[in-house]
Amino acid sequence: MVQRGAVAEDRGRVLSDLAHWLTETFGRRPADLAPYERALTHGSQAAANYERLEFLGDRVLGLIVAEWLYETFAGDAEGQLSKRFNALVTGAVCADVARELGVRDHLKLGKQARDDGASDSDNVLGDVMEALIGAWYREAGLDAARMFVRQAWGDRVKAGAKAPQHPKSQLQEWAAAHNRKPPEYRIVERTGPGHAPRFTIAVSVGKLAEATAEGTSKQEAETAAAKALLEKLG
Amino acid sequence: MVQRGAVAEDRGRVLSDLAHWLTETFGRRPADLAPYERALTHGSQAAANYERLEFLGDRVLGLIVAEWLYETFAGDAEGQLSKRFNALVTGAVCADVARELGVRDHLKLGKQARDDGASDSDNVLGDVMEALIGAWYREAGLDAARMFVRQAWGDRVKAGAKAPQHPKSQLQEWAAAHNRKPPEYRIVERTGPGHAPRFTIAVSVGKLAEATAEGTSKQEAETAAAKALLEKLG
Repeated sequence: MVQRGAVAEDRGRVLSDLAHWLTETFGRRPADLAPYERALTHGSQAAANYERLEFLGDRVLGLIVAEWLYETFAGDAEGQLSKRFNALVTGAVCADVARELGVRDHLKLGKQARDDGASDSDNVLGDVMEALIGAWYREAGLDAARMFVRQAWGDRVKAGAKAPQHPKSQLQEWAAAHNRKPPEYRIVERTGPGHAPRFTIAVSVGKLAEATAEGTSKQEAETAAAKALLEKLG
Repeated sequence: MVQRGAVAEDRGRVLSDLAHWLTETFGRRPADLAPYERALTHGSQAAANYERLEFLGDRVLGLIVAEWLYETFAGDAEGQLSKRFNALVTGAVCADVARELGVRDHLKLGKQARDDGASDSDNVLGDVMEALIGAWYREAGLDAARMFVRQAWGDRVKAGAKAPQHPKSQLQEWAAAHNRKPPEYRIVERTGPGHAPRFTIAVSVGKLAEATAEGTSKQEAETAAAKALLEKLG
């Protein structure tokens, strides 16, 4: 009984964290958490995973970005619009947005996928980002989805055909392009009091190169480490 | 002066025909015909052609079909949804819908493109269909576009992964698959009074085979001829 109570309490805390994060992310508390839980669930974790919502969300994102470009670049021919479009909806950019929003802390992965680094994979984060957009569209409609995407993608739309990449995405692409293992991040040190921690993170690409950096969150330290390693790699 | 008056009258008749057809097609008279004229204009005819609207309409159609499948096939996994999706948004199906709606009579093609058979090309008709959906979405919004697409695509969504094809699309694909020239249609005879004409059309695929059929419109006779030729070809 004690244990069952503890599990229920744990599940309650997870759901309340999720509701809080979704309210912050979408600007409104979702009526039902279930579709969002599903959007955050990888195939390795459950059959009720994000894949169907990603199928839908991919097209929601596509329309919103296409319309945005159509309006913003009234002088562009179709070829130029398509180039911009592809740069904005690519997995790396979706993953970049997902990282900014803190999607990673809410992912539900199976053990194997977690061990394989899925929680920082551009593929997984990008897919989940699209699935979340699909869930939000189902709940709130196109206007709300459009507002969300325009805010989350922000200046990327003006940044020209080649969207600026998050250093972690960039490093991951570098490793893939050079046939190296995906980057691995590990915590070297955690210091400071609970309310003001400092993290030191090391990132390495196989045995090729390593860099270390500090930050006030893991995410910040990882980003700084990826940036430092990219500079080393030229 | 007489000639200029005649040209203006001609243009007036074309626009009034277009307005009539659009009202029938979309169930409401468009406020401004210009975007629809553009959606019907091939690159061979003017720089203000359908390409930008097609870029947008492609994504409008994509979202509407994806959402429709998501709702209709609640038990399908993502892979099955994608297969159905690809079968429904392919150029041949868009062209099929365009033929049913009579898009062909309103196309604006340059002379060369007309001589090349663009007015019955799956590519051109499919692109124009998407551009029209883009124009209608811009004017009337997603709900109206969804109503239009669900009506125009109709039973195709339930027809399984392989959508039934219009005989003319089917014949065109057959010719391409067998490395033959595209089908050519020619009027053999036109009889009957103006209000009740009868057309006899012959269709051939290179020098390989030919079939002839009758109908009360060119379109009807061509469809019957394509069907007859497909039967001959086995």
